[in-house]
Amino acid sequence: MEKFKVIFYPDNKSVEVEKDRTILSAALSAGVYINSACGGDGVCGRCRVILRKGACSMLSAGALSLQDRKRGVYLACLATIQSDCEIEVPPESRVEFDQVQSGRSDRRLGGFYAAAEDVQAADLVPQQQQPAAAPLTEKVYLELDPPDLNDHISDLERLYRAIHRSKGLQVSHTGLVNVRLLGDTLRDALWKVTVTLARRPGIVELLGVEAGDRAAANFGFAFDIGTTTVSGQLINLSDSSIVGTKATYNKQASFGADVITRIMYAQKEEGLEKLHGAVIESINGIIHSLVSERGIDLNDVTAVLCAGNTTMMHLLLRIDPASIRKDPYVPAANSIPVVRCHEAGITVNPRALLYCVPGIASYVGGDVTAGVLSCGLDKMQDVSLLIDIGTNGEIVLGNREFLVATAASAGPAFEGSGVSCGMRSSSGAIQKISVDPKTFAVSYETIAGAKPRGICGSGYIDAIAAMLKAGVLDKDGTLRQIPGRVRPNDSGSEFVVVPASETETAEDIVITEADIENIKRAKAAIYAATMTLMKRLSFEFGQISRIFIAGGFGTSLDIRSAIGIGLLPDVDEAKYLFVGNSSLAGARQQLVSEPALARARDIASRMTYLELSVEPGYMDEYMAALFFPHTDLSRFPNF
Amino acid sequence: MEKFKVIFYPDNKSVEVEKDRTILSAALSAGVYINSACGGDGVCGRCRVILRKGACSMLSAGALSLQDRKRGVYLACLATIQSDCEIEVPPESRVEFDQVQSGRSDRRLGGFYAAAEDVQAADLVPQQQQPAAAPLTEKVYLELDPPDLNDHISDLERLYRAIHRSKGLQVSHTGLVNVRLLGDTLRDALWKVTVTLARRPGIVELLGVEAGDRAAANFGFAFDIGTTTVSGQLINLSDSSIVGTKATYNKQASFGADVITRIMYAQKEEGLEKLHGAVIESINGIIHSLVSERGIDLNDVTAVLCAGNTTMMHLLLRIDPASIRKDPYVPAANSIPVVRCHEAGITVNPRALLYCVPGIASYVGGDVTAGVLSCGLDKMQDVSLLIDIGTNGEIVLGNREFLVATAASAGPAFEGSGVSCGMRSSSGAIQKISVDPKTFAVSYETIAGAKPRGICGSGYIDAIAAMLKAGVLDKDGTLRQIPGRVRPNDSGSEFVVVPASETETAEDIVITEADIENIKRAKAAIYAATMTLMKRLSFEFGQISRIFIAGGFGTSLDIRSAIGIGLLPDVDEAKYLFVGNSSLAGARQQLVSEPALARARDIASRMTYLELSVEPGYMDEYMAALFFPHTDLSRFPNF
Repeated sequence: MEKFKVIFYPDNKSVEVEKDRTILSAALSAGVYINSACGGDGVCGRCRVILRKGACSMLSAGALSLQDRKRGVYLACLATIQSDCEIEVPPESRVEFDQVQSGRSDRRLGGFYAAAEDVQAADLVPQQQQPAAAPLTEKVYLELDPPDLNDHISDLERLYRAIHRSKGLQVSHTGLVNVRLLGDTLRDALWKVTVTLARRPGIVELLGVEAGDRAAANFGFAFDIGTTTVSGQLINLSDSSIVGTKATYNKQASFGADVITRIMYAQKEEGLEKLHGAVIESINGIIHSLVSERGIDLNDVTAVLCAGNTTMMHLLLRIDPASIRKDPYVPAANSIPVVRCHEAGITVNPRALLYCVPGIASYVGGDVTAGVLSCGLDKMQDVSLLIDIGTNGEIVLGNREFLVATAASAGPAFEGSGVSCGMRSSSGAIQKISVDPKTFAVSYETIAGAKPRGICGSGYIDAIAAMLKAGVLDKDGTLRQIPGRVRPNDSGSEFVVVPASETETAEDIVITEADIENIKRAKAAIYAATMTLMKRLSFEFGQISRIFIAGGFGTSLDIRSAIGIGLLPDVDEAKYLFVGNSSLAGARQQLVSEPALARARDIASRMTYLELSVEPGYMDEYMAALFFPHTDLSRFPNF
Repeated sequence: MEKFKVIFYPDNKSVEVEKDRTILSAALSAGVYINSACGGDGVCGRCRVILRKGACSMLSAGALSLQDRKRGVYLACLATIQSDCEIEVPPESRVEFDQVQSGRSDRRLGGFYAAAEDVQAADLVPQQQQPAAAPLTEKVYLELDPPDLNDHISDLERLYRAIHRSKGLQVSHTGLVNVRLLGDTLRDALWKVTVTLARRPGIVELLGVEAGDRAAANFGFAFDIGTTTVSGQLINLSDSSIVGTKATYNKQASFGADVITRIMYAQKEEGLEKLHGAVIESINGIIHSLVSERGIDLNDVTAVLCAGNTTMMHLLLRIDPASIRKDPYVPAANSIPVVRCHEAGITVNPRALLYCVPGIASYVGGDVTAGVLSCGLDKMQDVSLLIDIGTNGEIVLGNREFLVATAASAGPAFEGSGVSCGMRSSSGAIQKISVDPKTFAVSYETIAGAKPRGICGSGYIDAIAAMLKAGVLDKDGTLRQIPGRVRPNDSGSEFVVVPASETETAEDIVITEADIENIKRAKAAIYAATMTLMKRLSFEFGQISRIFIAGGFGTSLDIRSAIGIGLLPDVDEAKYLFVGNSSLAGARQQLVSEPALARARDIASRMTYLELSVEPGYMDEYMAALFFPHTDLSRFPNF
């Protein structure tokens, strides 16, 4: 078989592949991750690359414009290698790796905006129910009495006795490797050692023994594994402090934008292995990046706790998710046993434990359990609502007496994916926009004040609300023709937010009618799910004391804009509280507190699931919501 | 480096080795196991081989007679390979692999002889305290309700629910591999599956899931890992029945006869690995032999439970035993965590569990715990004594209120090792001997009535008692010169038990003065330990209701002969009960009963240890016992 060398820029990574392999497949082999929302079907247009040298062939042009084709743009999923090639992956096509805006200092007055980190500090959860600090893994320094003829119990029993005396804990398990090394470690260390203890359901495990006092060198990672975004936090388990936070696109994006596409991909040959490998690479990337920045030894990472939707948890552990999308839609497992990180491929301490937050159903996963935990919904007397806006939107209604959850597929638009100039809420993302109703001039704010690179989820919400208000956009999603600002494109019209001259990428940042349609569907799905859940349980918004809005929007979400486009119901704005990534916050909470881990299990066992596909009212609600803000304007009296 | 080909007969196994390698080391590489009681020091003379072709050199003749040297006999531990060779390993030098005499049908009238298997049936343990049957691993057939839209819990939770409904057990752990395979297994099997459940301290683990009804295909192995002998029993865990029993010499015999020599060997380079490999080979040999004879799939072996002395347990799990022989004599672990069999190298089902019976101290191991359990000493109202006669002799005094154990090194003579014509109690072993006081003619019985091959432990006891009675042997261990029956040899005299014309090996079966000295020391060690323990706790034999005699003698031990040589105290013979391999019986009891496992932990935690080396009276007792039956004849009024 003829082989060609392909070099990818700017990574400068090269690979040898056979003739007729797709660029996307060659890129994966080279370790270069390219966006591909549709899973290689050539319809999403997210995997544009530029051929700098060599020959590729592409039978169909897919989503490419004539202009694109003139510039040497190819769709990586459709184009095949025909010679040695040099290929550039432009910024908008890259699955990137950068820092999430943690925004702890950015809490706005009025209570509308709060990063997830701040929720714990707020008085939402009654104080007496705050769990005591008992991290899932703990390092304890011990000075043992050396053995003598009057005290000749074995090394292991001596260690267990010292642990019991110091912590009141009965160790019930340890690995053979620890017993094998114990005698030498104890004697070399002159009987002064640090033990790592892990709390697993029902038992305490001795994870490891080190010489000397290493009690402070104990770290863990909390993760939210989203369909589109993977967010991780490095936690110092000796004092529960956050050492650092990072997020990255889930590298599975190369195989499809939503969970259904990925489940289908998993059925292909090696499909499950590739999806598993991609998410593990995303996780290991965050771990290695944070650990090396802080000069921490990977062996001192002793626990990882992951929250995520049910499909993500299956792919994380290389469990076939096939049954999730087949009637009657049951996953292989909602509660996943505690395993070792290395069994999943996560490269930390070889005996470190991996905990997964239990989920409720195929479309309501452990991320929702973690979200309920972090907001304290399960402890509240008043009934509240949690709306988690992601590629899969989840809504929970309840209090300490009941919890009902539902889910709706919204697509990745609110995470800045699957839209033409979308990006995650990182440096250079436009997050606030206003449009002058007379001149149609646009003013905008970017994250970190950087030169604009694209628009993040909260930016799209703000932009559409502003365009509606300024009369640029009709309530059905059609753009008015405004010379110099709105122009025709291949599939309709597009609104120029920032001209190429002002952008980082030297290309126009635009919002197309296709983007608007995308967002309209996403917001309609979430709004309709919320309303269906409320009606099904015969609740009025007057009976709801709080509405928690969660999602990876970064530091800001303008609740008024979100109501303005019809994503959220038009109720008293004081009821809304933006809590950021509540799944990540709930994951961290469990990592540093065994009672919180038990509480999560309790939440998962108590929560019931409302399946929208069998709810008669849902489709009507959805159709009625395909309008800005809604076909029934009486529901939005303030807009 | 020059290489030579060495062929070993009768195995017909060959190996290529460098010049100057010892025959013993070449044999190990070829997978041929040769007896070597002294660990390669050339003193025990157990590793005789015959050079049939080629050249070997041997600087010192070690324990070889002139006659041996003329016949081409070499000591495998001293002789080095100098050319291509063909070497014969004679039967007496082989570490053999054959069936133990289980003797369930051989219980003698009068209660003196009972195989370990029968103890359970006797009324020693009060009935109400007999544990209910709950094997450590259990297969349960389940017919699950398939999921539908009204019952859409996940596959794993569905399985756990069915287990709970069927058995009332809450599964708290399973391996990732089971979750990965679960969806397909359940659906392919149309929701009719068999689960394997394992009971571990504090938790129930789901070990595996199989299609269809396989509830009856569940097996386990109980092992007694002795310094000299490894005995294993295949148990059908679905009904607790014994499927088969086998024993073999511990292949570690190639590295030394007693635990001290082996601990020293373990300190050499690769020494620990070799000792570990040898015992694992012995274990796997028994497993594979029994399993293939019965046509059982190795994957259906789901649990292995081992009892053994503390050093054996360390070597079994490749834990360095060094600290056992260094002041203050503490092992790495008395209680070893439950691990997977494959972690130790035992080749059964990959997820099968390995349980080790907890020990008490460096020289009182889990074999004693198991022995106490099987005799029911820990449940008795009356005080009893357990004397376990092996390479290490252990004595326990106690009842349901107290348990005190001690240990003395006796050497392997009673297991038919380290004596010139010794063998295990298998087919062809002489087990009963009488000597006519006038003609000095010998009559004897062999196991299975086969042609005599050697003398087993109970045979030696019987022989010495008979020789004392007939006046052939003096009370100090000197043989009378009797032409045709007693003759001089290299180091004194020897008694011809069976002439070469009648034996399987076509060589005389003899008892030498060196053998007699060996047995005298062994019996003195055990008698002295028993007496020291009794005195230390101020007990008289009148206060003891039962004396259990345990050991791998096979089907028979003549208690009268054992008293006659001074091995056992001269008390009312009705108090004695021979219980055979009580360690193996106790191991099996735990394998088939979780309450027995808990009871063993309780015994180990309650039993205290009396260290003889710091007991002032022990040495005097030992010296006084170096006589047949004793220097103080008033202690043996009936002899």
